[in-house]
Amino acid sequence: MKIDPKLDLVLERVIDLSPELVWAAWTEPEHIKHWFTPRPWSTVDCEIDLRPGGIFRTVMRSPDGEDHPNVGCFLEIVPNRKLVFTDALEANFRPARQESSLPFHFTATILIEPHGKGTKYTAIAMHADPDSCKKHEEMGFHEGWGKALDQLVGYMNAARVGHAG
Amino acid sequence: MKIDPKLDLVLERVIDLSPELVWAAWTEPEHIKHWFTPRPWSTVDCEIDLRPGGIFRTVMRSPDGEDHPNVGCFLEIVPNRKLVFTDALEANFRPARQESSLPFHFTATILIEPHGKGTKYTAIAMHADPDSCKKHEEMGFHEGWGKALDQLVGYMNAARVGHAG
Repeated sequence: MKIDPKLDLVLERVIDLSPELVWAAWTEPEHIKHWFTPRPWSTVDCEIDLRPGGIFRTVMRSPDGEDHPNVGCFLEIVPNRKLVFTDALEANFRPARQESSLPFHFTATILIEPHGKGTKYTAIAMHADPDSCKKHEEMGFHEGWGKALDQLVGYMNAARVGHAG
Repeated sequence: MKIDPKLDLVLERVIDLSPELVWAAWTEPEHIKHWFTPRPWSTVDCEIDLRPGGIFRTVMRSPDGEDHPNVGCFLEIVPNRKLVFTDALEANFRPARQESSLPFHFTATILIEPHGKGTKYTAIAMHADPDSCKKHEEMGFHEGWGKALDQLVGYMNAARVGHAG
């Protein structure tokens, strides 16, 4: 994938979790609810229709108890390797209204590559213009997605050994 | 496909052309230039990267000689049967700026079904909201897409018997 530093944000990390468990964490609603939103926010609902054009819907709850729904759709699915989705489209590829919790649309690519220590994990957020990209960065993309990834690894590792799930 | 009459516009017609020739007309830039834009407008440039996430770019020229570029991307490709693209995304699924010739984004689905007389052709334009749908209809969706389809059939039939192409 070609990255454009003016338009794209990237989080890359090697994590101690198999590609298959990273994939499960990203594609099963029950898993998503455990890690997707950096605490003290939480994810209280999730709908996944895992096909190109299928819906990807989450509801994030703020610490004050306010719910923020996000609707998007999947674009590309390569099991255990690559997941692409966007909030610029809704279910069945319908153009989205600008009603998400962010003031811009973005397309996310999650790359999952086998690595000696587990998985090389790369999350890429693509934006329409430099201004949206900068806003997303200033809103804390790296910290937020990094913290969510920590939660993903912690939760899936615990689930794997039977302490959670 | 589920049609929502408040959000979607549909042009359905049986045409005297094989599914394979309809598919060729829609997927080869040299063909597109001959029929895609209702005359006296013309299509002076076309770029097609026929894969999900691949670019679909056209340049329409007005009778005054003014060029109007349109950029979109393909979403679903079923050879000889179904083509889905949107201008809500650009190449590689990047969210689009609102810079096309229309004041809204839409997703188009072209359904191509074998029929005794040739092909049952269905073009569906999906919009984000009723207002965009209504605008698109008032701008002459049915007349424009119908006239372009007439041009497609006329051009491809002529090309087939060696009078054009």
